[in-house]
Amino acid sequence: MSERPTVHTEYEMQTSEPWQSDSSGFLENEKIRTRINLINEEIKRCLLDEDGEPKQLYETVRHLILAGGKRLRSLLLILGCEAVGGTLVDALPFAVATEFIQTASLIHDDVIDEDDLRRGVETTHKKYGEKMAIISGDLLVGLAIKLIGERATPQLLTSVATAGIRMCEGEAADLLMSQNKAQTYTTKAALDIIRMKTVAFMTYAAKVGAILGKATEEQSELLMKYAEDLGFSFQIRDDILDIVATQNGTGETGLSDLNRNVSNFVLAHTIESSSPRKKKELIRKLDEGDVDFAFERIKEMKSIEYATETAKEFMEAAKDRIRGTNFSNGELLMLLADFAVKRQY
Amino acid sequence: MSERPTVHTEYEMQTSEPWQSDSSGFLENEKIRTRINLINEEIKRCLLDEDGEPKQLYETVRHLILAGGKRLRSLLLILGCEAVGGTLVDALPFAVATEFIQTASLIHDDVIDEDDLRRGVETTHKKYGEKMAIISGDLLVGLAIKLIGERATPQLLTSVATAGIRMCEGEAADLLMSQNKAQTYTTKAALDIIRMKTVAFMTYAAKVGAILGKATEEQSELLMKYAEDLGFSFQIRDDILDIVATQNGTGETGLSDLNRNVSNFVLAHTIESSSPRKKKELIRKLDEGDVDFAFERIKEMKSIEYATETAKEFMEAAKDRIRGTNFSNGELLMLLADFAVKRQY
Repeated sequence: MSERPTVHTEYEMQTSEPWQSDSSGFLENEKIRTRINLINEEIKRCLLDEDGEPKQLYETVRHLILAGGKRLRSLLLILGCEAVGGTLVDALPFAVATEFIQTASLIHDDVIDEDDLRRGVETTHKKYGEKMAIISGDLLVGLAIKLIGERATPQLLTSVATAGIRMCEGEAADLLMSQNKAQTYTTKAALDIIRMKTVAFMTYAAKVGAILGKATEEQSELLMKYAEDLGFSFQIRDDILDIVATQNGTGETGLSDLNRNVSNFVLAHTIESSSPRKKKELIRKLDEGDVDFAFERIKEMKSIEYATETAKEFMEAAKDRIRGTNFSNGELLMLLADFAVKRQY
Repeated sequence: MSERPTVHTEYEMQTSEPWQSDSSGFLENEKIRTRINLINEEIKRCLLDEDGEPKQLYETVRHLILAGGKRLRSLLLILGCEAVGGTLVDALPFAVATEFIQTASLIHDDVIDEDDLRRGVETTHKKYGEKMAIISGDLLVGLAIKLIGERATPQLLTSVATAGIRMCEGEAADLLMSQNKAQTYTTKAALDIIRMKTVAFMTYAAKVGAILGKATEEQSELLMKYAEDLGFSFQIRDDILDIVATQNGTGETGLSDLNRNVSNFVLAHTIESSSPRKKKELIRKLDEGDVDFAFERIKEMKSIEYATETAKEFMEAAKDRIRGTNFSNGELLMLLADFAVKRQY
């Protein structure tokens, strides 16, 4: 991938929008919408098939997963499968299982991070209690394994399990790092956590898609590298949105990452760039919940600009992976990369 | 199974001990000890192989699983495999995965039930915090899937997933039932919960063992029925021990089931057998934490005797399944049934 890749005209068109553009054109794309609609329909169908007892448990399970979500990971899995010649239908059960596992991790993470809002609705534990939330996350994992059970191969299963293990490690690392901000809160550490919590699962989604589409080793590698870059850009944008939304007072989650024990790339940059004295002061203020003080420091250190630039670099790297390939629906992978950093939600 | 089965002399010897005997001879049996030791060694080996980061997460994972445990489900899986001609070695990875999943469910259940002690040590969340406990349970599921991933077939995976789903349903049903003692706390409801929380997983363990040992359909059915009866006798004995230990003041968990939101077969009998007025009074006293009052009522209604008789009936039914078969190590399955109801811990 070191030589200058051939640039397809269609890709040029997609990426010729000015960087500042608000919209990536992602959701307006008919093919993207078709795929997201299909994933949503299949999720609903699978959950209706699994309408077991007690009713309240299944209601709890449906709460967050039917509240929407970007379906980014399942879309990535489907696009990865299609890219190398597989069909949407081959990928669909695994796409749904991916959303089940992702939602399970969100439900448990929200309990752990004590979040109140998610996807515009109350978090599962806020609405149904922590106990039901823990069980419903476990149930979603069981449902996911059942869903892929009939079609799984050792290679696929090992990928899924490894991604799950990495997510747990990431969540634990995040928890531990946030408890010790002064020593461990660096951009490198934040990227390490993003690698475990977000990127590992994205890479797995692409890998599973590639396996299902019968990709060559080279194609599979390429899709995984793309997913890795995409994952970083996506999560850094997430961290920016968290800060910006809080700053604008439009943040659904109120003060969000800044006063919870969750790492944030923007904040990591601010802390890292501060002098020892200022670093100590900032951490103390954060522990006291003085978010306004933190905002001022974030502005002063230009951390949002730094994070935006970093996200953009990862996005460009992701696109570079795809340029010059003959992947089917390659333009959708390009669009997905644009969306990762341009999205407002 | 309706005709009088042939009784093997060796089984007669095993079951000729008086019912009141304190020991079932289970742990003194060399073959049983060999298998439990092997399971324990393999668990340790697998956990050392998986010594990832962050260290504290893996320390949390090891805490409960290395604290011991009866290894009943993994033993059942191994004995099921051996019964039909499979080898111990074939069954071992699945036995370890079974213990991982079982331990994951215990860690999460303890968070949900707010328990302080388990297997003679502090519960995981008590020692490492609820957050790490939730993550470590999730991690154990990931490790289990990875462990069986390379050897799993659709049939095996579907069995594992279904057992997991039933356990979640059982835990939720238990939670909901305990919140509404007056209307739902019956022996039938308690047995339903035992069926979901304990029996489903035992049946799965036997089924996986049977599949691994290449059992015939008939052999597999028989082992599953045996596991079902074993599961009921085992859990009813567990419920008795919980009450008796509490009563003797030797209960590790203090007041245990009686003042937690966990169903108990003994208590269900007491409530069910009481007149409407007495039922109301008992539930009020339980809600107030008046355990002494509950003990008196349990004695009055002879609920421990009733539960002991029921457990014994299930144990005999389990043994009847095995009698007359030519299962390898069938005498160990008989011993296991004895142990289920005679054990003091």
